Amino acid sequence: MPECLLTRVEHFSAAHRLHNSAFTTEKNEEIFGKCNRSHGHNYLLETTLKGKIDPQTGMVINLSQLKSILRQVLDTLDHCHLDLDIPYFRDNNIVSTTENLAVFIWKSLREILPNPTLLYEVKLYETSSNWVVYRGEE
Amino acid sequence: MPECLLTRVEHFSAAHRLHNSAFTTEKNEEIFGKCNRSHGHNYLLETTLKGKIDPQTGMVINLSQLKSILRQVLDTLDHCHLDLDIPYFRDNNIVSTTENLAVFIWKSLREILPNPTLLYEVKLYETSSNWVVYRGEE
Amino acid sequence: MPECLLTRVEHFSAAHRLHNSAFTTEKNEEIFGKCNRSHGHNYLLETTLKGKIDPQTGMVINLSQLKSILRQVLDTLDHCHLDLDIPYFRDNNIVSTTENLAVFIWKSLREILPNPTLLYEVKLYETSSNWVVYRGEE
Amino acid sequence: MPECLLTRVEHFSAAHRLHNSAFTTEKNEEIFGKCNRSHGHNYLLETTLKGKIDPQTGMVINLSQLKSILRQVLDTLDHCHLDLDIPYFRDNNIVSTTENLAVFIWKSLREILPNPTLLYEVKLYETSSNWVVYRGEE
Amino acid sequence: MPECLLTRVEHFSAAHRLHNSAFTTEKNEEIFGKCNRSHGHNYLLETTLKGKIDPQTGMVINLSQLKSILRQVLDTLDHCHLDLDIPYFRDNNIVSTTENLAVFIWKSLREILPNPTLLYEVKLYETSSNWVVYRGEE
Amino acid sequence: MPECLLTRVEHFSAAHRLHNSAFTTEKNEEIFGKCNRSHGHNYLLETTLKGKIDPQTGMVINLSQLKSILRQVLDTLDHCHLDLDIPYFRDNNIVSTTENLAVFIWKSLREILPNPTLLYEVKLYETSSNWVVYRGEE
Repeated sequence: MPECLLTRVEHFSAAHRLHNSAFTTEKNEEIFGKCNRSHGHNYLLETTLKGKIDPQTGMVINLSQLKSILRQVLDTLDHCHLDLDIPYFRDNNIVSTTENLAVFIWKSLREILPNPTLLYEVKLYETSSNWVVYRGEE
Repeated sequence: MPECLLTRVEHFSAAHRLHNSAFTTEKNEEIFGKCNRSHGHNYLLETTLKGKIDPQTGMVINLSQLKSILRQVLDTLDHCHLDLDIPYFRDNNIVSTTENLAVFIWKSLREILPNPTLLYEVKLYETSSNWVVYRGEE
Repeated sequence: MPECLLTRVEHFSAAHRLHNSAFTTEKNEEIFGKCNRSHGHNYLLETTLKGKIDPQTGMVINLSQLKSILRQVLDTLDHCHLDLDIPYFRDNNIVSTTENLAVFIWKSLREILPNPTLLYEVKLYETSSNWVVYRGEE
Repeated sequence: MPECLLTRVEHFSAAHRLHNSAFTTEKNEEIFGKCNRSHGHNYLLETTLKGKIDPQTGMVINLSQLKSILRQVLDTLDHCHLDLDIPYFRDNNIVSTTENLAVFIWKSLREILPNPTLLYEVKLYETSSNWVVYRGEE
Repeated sequence: MPECLLTRVEHFSAAHRLHNSAFTTEKNEEIFGKCNRSHGHNYLLETTLKGKIDPQTGMVINLSQLKSILRQVLDTLDHCHLDLDIPYFRDNNIVSTTENLAVFIWKSLREILPNPTLLYEVKLYETSSNWVVYRGEE
Repeated sequence: MPECLLTRVEHFSAAHRLHNSAFTTEKNEEIFGKCNRSHGHNYLLETTLKGKIDPQTGMVINLSQLKSILRQVLDTLDHCHLDLDIPYFRDNNIVSTTENLAVFIWKSLREILPNPTLLYEVKLYETSSNWVVYRGEE
């Protein structure tokens, strides 16, 4: 049974700022530059699963099921302010960089995927020029 | 002397929310839906000039000059919250829809272009699925 | 009150073949080439409305209303065979070229838009290399 | 001698439906949804070879040779109905999902590549939102 | 009979530099900047025809015929140095800006199109950030 | 501490030709075809670093620092003729294929990155249809 990678794209739009409350104002500006101000992005997420092709359906996973799982996670992020509305960032002083947002999405997907070991990688585009890939490595 | 259209692309990222302070909370939610919450976008702006080709330079306008003019306007919008940081929206209760933002950019460019009659249209993408064209029509 | 153009993108996927039952087999092959065989496309539709910006909402039309109207038309085309499943093509021997499909979509939208005079153009991509624009001209 | 990955893009358009003749009509509809109806796609294939750079030519493989090999496989799929015209799917009751189509293309390329061990992966886009990568793993 | 716009995309790659031999070296550098040095681009051309849809074929023009006409013009530009290899630029001291190249392509297409009045516009991308539209206006 | 991949896109435009001075004219034409003539491209480079996320900044590397390092390398290639202006190609008879150019960029980045072991891969697009990935393998 062949094993392959299946990727599905989803979008969301959010506001955020890069800010560490443990830093001084000057240090926040020095490190985060203009990203220290509130702004926003159209995020694009490519989620990849790796698994055997089911010989009956020809699928790794049913795309409509995958889409539904992805929207469960992304609808909580869509049209919000990451640093004000999402407890993971707001309550833990975690800077909402693309790196940390990708890790958050990875963890959230692992929790609700019926077969979490299928999750291979998340690729999160902040803009068409910058993106992050996370594969669960620590 | 041939006359043509010249277009230059620039990007900026901003936060905003759709909200009319003259509406009730319920009406704001009904009309603007999830866009009533603070979120953000990677905006893409295509600015088009129309003019004669200069026979000496082969140009309608020097692109490095045009780029500099565009950045003057867009750097005031980039990495900010449109409704909190930009007086045009904040002080006039103008809803920061893509339509109104395109009109604002058109007016701002008209003010600083050395030859404002060259300005033909601005095309403002809020996402890759929604955009607005404004050509100065009233 | 400024007047602008607002565009919304929607997708659908369909099968079709280019075939005129009034032609001989040879003539069909000569004119339509490999497109005379059943095949399919991911169609992308850009629908543009032109109108005044409402000063209360900042909108030409509410995008969620526009999206709903577009899906009414496109859901009848999505995941079907244009020449077998759509009466307009099947029953009238109308060849399902991008040109004729754009005209069909224009007419269908005109019928269900609450304010049909807002409709400015439909731009239908058969592939990323070929597309048609229709603006209601006869 | 450095070793690198070289990728070439090719397109084809095809009709298909997702259907398993061993399933009841109800089960086919339940599992495959609207994809159980005949429709079609513009497929995009990215084929990647991995190999040493030839110090004389600076190439892993001559791109015009690679293009010719890819078209041999893809011209048999282009502008056809996968389930009716391609024996691999038609005669073996193999569901023409993107997963199975990627495996079929991989196997077909392995048969005609002069140096089949160069083949590293095929990445097959059904739409710009869904794709599959196959690297020959079983 | 409906009238519509049909667009076809083609690509070519060429080297060039912006240089006016009537200028001093200093003036060339001042006006053209880094573009005064030999460099190159992947040009993308969108050619649009406007015409009635033929009721027999459903077409404005047969795309395979249009593609063949476009390649006649573009194959003379593809993989060459515009200022050294193309007499129009080399022999007339015409600066090979995108503006002038769009005009050249327009004129060349007008000469070989069987029905030149169908030609509506050429849109020439020098990069994904800069392009020119020419519609034959003088 | 999670480890992830961070990618940044940069562009440059250059002229080149594929030519090996150790080959006869006939052999150069046979192997390199039309690429043996001077032409040019808009190159797009995706540079990927792999590293731990800094818990203070939420970053693998500061993107403004990464951008500055990338421009140091790419500004020497931008708006030049690779075979005439870049000593690596000009003085060593190295054919300026995408493969060899990717290796050159990899080596150049390794020399100036403050932490060169972070460099994971460079992906160099010659056109939107052809690209090369190099990860330092020999």
